[in-house]
Amino acid sequence: MSRLSGFPELLPAERVVEQQVLDHLRRVFELHGFANLETRAVEPLEQLLRKGEIDKEVYTLRRLQATDGDENTADTLALHFDLTVPFARYVVENSSRLEFPFRRYQVQKVWRGERPQQGRFREFTQADIDIVARDVLPFHFDVEVARVMAEALGGLSLLLAPHTSGSERPGFTLQVSNRKVLEGFYLGLGIAEPTQVMAIVDKLDKLPADAVRLMLRQAGLDDPQADACLALSTISAPDTSFVARVQELGVEHPLLAEGLDELRRVVEGCAGIEGADVVVDLRIARGLDYYTGTVFETRMTGYEHLGSVCSGGRYDELARDNRSTYPGVGISLGVSRLVVPLVAGGLTASRSVPSAVLVSVLDEDARQASDRLAATLRSRGISTEVAPSAQKLGKQIRHAERRGIPFVLFPGDPVQAKDIRTGEQVDVDPATWTPPAEDLVPHVVTPSTPPEETAP
Amino acid sequence: MSRLSGFPELLPAERVVEQQVLDHLRRVFELHGFANLETRAVEPLEQLLRKGEIDKEVYTLRRLQATDGDENTADTLALHFDLTVPFARYVVENSSRLEFPFRRYQVQKVWRGERPQQGRFREFTQADIDIVARDVLPFHFDVEVARVMAEALGGLSLLLAPHTSGSERPGFTLQVSNRKVLEGFYLGLGIAEPTQVMAIVDKLDKLPADAVRLMLRQAGLDDPQADACLALSTISAPDTSFVARVQELGVEHPLLAEGLDELRRVVEGCAGIEGADVVVDLRIARGLDYYTGTVFETRMTGYEHLGSVCSGGRYDELARDNRSTYPGVGISLGVSRLVVPLVAGGLTASRSVPSAVLVSVLDEDARQASDRLAATLRSRGISTEVAPSAQKLGKQIRHAERRGIPFVLFPGDPVQAKDIRTGEQVDVDPATWTPPAEDLVPHVVTPSTPPEETAP
Repeated sequence: MSRLSGFPELLPAERVVEQQVLDHLRRVFELHGFANLETRAVEPLEQLLRKGEIDKEVYTLRRLQATDGDENTADTLALHFDLTVPFARYVVENSSRLEFPFRRYQVQKVWRGERPQQGRFREFTQADIDIVARDVLPFHFDVEVARVMAEALGGLSLLLAPHTSGSERPGFTLQVSNRKVLEGFYLGLGIAEPTQVMAIVDKLDKLPADAVRLMLRQAGLDDPQADACLALSTISAPDTSFVARVQELGVEHPLLAEGLDELRRVVEGCAGIEGADVVVDLRIARGLDYYTGTVFETRMTGYEHLGSVCSGGRYDELARDNRSTYPGVGISLGVSRLVVPLVAGGLTASRSVPSAVLVSVLDEDARQASDRLAATLRSRGISTEVAPSAQKLGKQIRHAERRGIPFVLFPGDPVQAKDIRTGEQVDVDPATWTPPAEDLVPHVVTPSTPPEETAP
Repeated sequence: MSRLSGFPELLPAERVVEQQVLDHLRRVFELHGFANLETRAVEPLEQLLRKGEIDKEVYTLRRLQATDGDENTADTLALHFDLTVPFARYVVENSSRLEFPFRRYQVQKVWRGERPQQGRFREFTQADIDIVARDVLPFHFDVEVARVMAEALGGLSLLLAPHTSGSERPGFTLQVSNRKVLEGFYLGLGIAEPTQVMAIVDKLDKLPADAVRLMLRQAGLDDPQADACLALSTISAPDTSFVARVQELGVEHPLLAEGLDELRRVVEGCAGIEGADVVVDLRIARGLDYYTGTVFETRMTGYEHLGSVCSGGRYDELARDNRSTYPGVGISLGVSRLVVPLVAGGLTASRSVPSAVLVSVLDEDARQASDRLAATLRSRGISTEVAPSAQKLGKQIRHAERRGIPFVLFPGDPVQAKDIRTGEQVDVDPATWTPPAEDLVPHVVTPSTPPEETAP
């Protein structure tokens, strides 16, 4: 039996890290009033194909025993490849039963049939937040979505590197741009087809500036136009100074002015979030997507090769039905894209089990006494397991040690508790004794964390 | 656009109910030291088919752009139809990196391509607990798994019907049997093929006793043998009295004695759990499954037509590799099977959003003051959202009301908080004010719960 390429699976201690990431995201999103949703894993294939050039990446489904006439192509189901398309369908389908503006977060697996490569998976978990309205969605929601995700990322950087500080800590940089700035700037330059230019400028991620310049010239731009487009794309700033730098390029257009104002509001609204810098980067266009204003990408320090771990933006036509359009703004965090490389790099948890305590069993006939002791601790919220057999106590302690369980309790009169890291053993009252707060749940351990001392 | 039959989706308030069910299960499982795991959604089709008569129910996958030569049948992937087969594969694949006995819980979607009918879904969530060992798994784990799931179900019955009591509360009955009892009894009767008899007796669920009796006679049993088998199947008891009743039938066999002792230990070990009765029911054989000892099924009061919502048992050959076998015992709870009918019956949450507080916006230019007020509350763990626009205050209150948000905060000096259910409005200090504990998170509301008063 061999592992399937592109379908990552975690070991128990690694899953603890992922669970803590997901718990953290849920806490932040719910503090901001986002309701949780899950949509089914499948959508009609036609529905997915309508959304663009993703057909190569879709997995279609077929019942094993289906006969040829059994399943109409029109009914073919496929696994969703993101959470945005299903959410748009859900909003339209349930529009009469939702309250708008509707804010939801959604954490689910998605599937893409692409060739696996570093950081690309065929199955992976995404965590999305979106706010969607009926007909009109005020701009301040763009700021809010950016701020909520930046707060979530800032907290993540603390969670994932608890023992580092300052510049050593792997942080997140949320890069913000606005397609109105780019489109308005191109229009102000007298370029007739700004969308085409945006798609070319988008390639600056992979091609040198000279190559992109050549493509711009081939698309019909003259030298000053191409130079101006490239000059715009070099502008980045951690504050609102980008506005003056754009204005210095001497281009004017109402759409440009509107975009600059929106972008300024995002940067101002996201200032001062610990662990997540929000910076303007006008190289970002997301030219192949459906965004109409604000766009986001995110880099993780030290993991820049993974590309953007968290992307999104404003889309004014997320969905529509006969009566209304549903404009939205959202960001999607690639949880697997973040967690899988980190645990592959050695990030793990202080233990592979939730248990803070192992209750030993002195004699198989006395197991009930150990069970009762464990129940007493559990009634006070302490995760506890009972030794699997009445082996020698040294072996029972080893059992705890191998799982990272910090305390072993010995039934008796008095009951005794041993911290197996220090060897310290004391009399305790099981009705009141509690492990130290930091030992109650597993915590994230970075590769650089000094190993904890263990009893001999 | 129409819903897909067999793929249930919940509205936000309904999802709150499901989330609370899942949170509760996680809390109980982790208190007992079960580690969480997720396995990939797909397995090689061959792997799934080896596990029995489920081939009609499997969804196979195909990349949309795959060419005929592209994908070898031997490489065909299919969606998993339960969590046990993937777990068995995971255990063997990672056996050198797991600590045995290994206890895990797993909550994931599974898929079956079957014809949808009441309570049957094509996509549904299961919550499984299993304990698996290398080579030998002591029997006390059967008792533990039963007890943990009974505690989880007992807590669920409180969670799902908080305002009813005693006999009115929908409870769970965990029915326990043991295949050693049945097989030993049949062997003691001189029946040569006990497995065949078990499969026939299993049909008592759907056929009248007379029809089953006829099938037993056709399988070669004489009248006294058939009568004895049927007599055994009628025995059920909420306590250990079943032992004497079996013994009164006058059959003896070492396997029967072993099975009776095991079953007695399960019943004794699960006594006194509030909200979940554990009863012996010797009609249960689970004749088509791979169980070798203890078997479980579960009925929910008032929802008996759904069949078993929670099933499992002991399987001594969960998995094997070249060196070892991995015996296990586990139970699987059908979360969707439970939650979907309950919410269809009117069970819902007190609000559709996590927010306990809506901060009003007096003027769009003063939105930042409202944002700061919201941040103050969130820093103390209070889920808070800010009004989407500076409408008239009556409309902002209606916005909260429609979502079930209990409190509206008005910025100013002093800040005021209004309980929109009573209309009471008081001055508050935002640095210390907290809604009552019962309002901090949504709670489950039963169809019979008297509606809370709302402000006019």
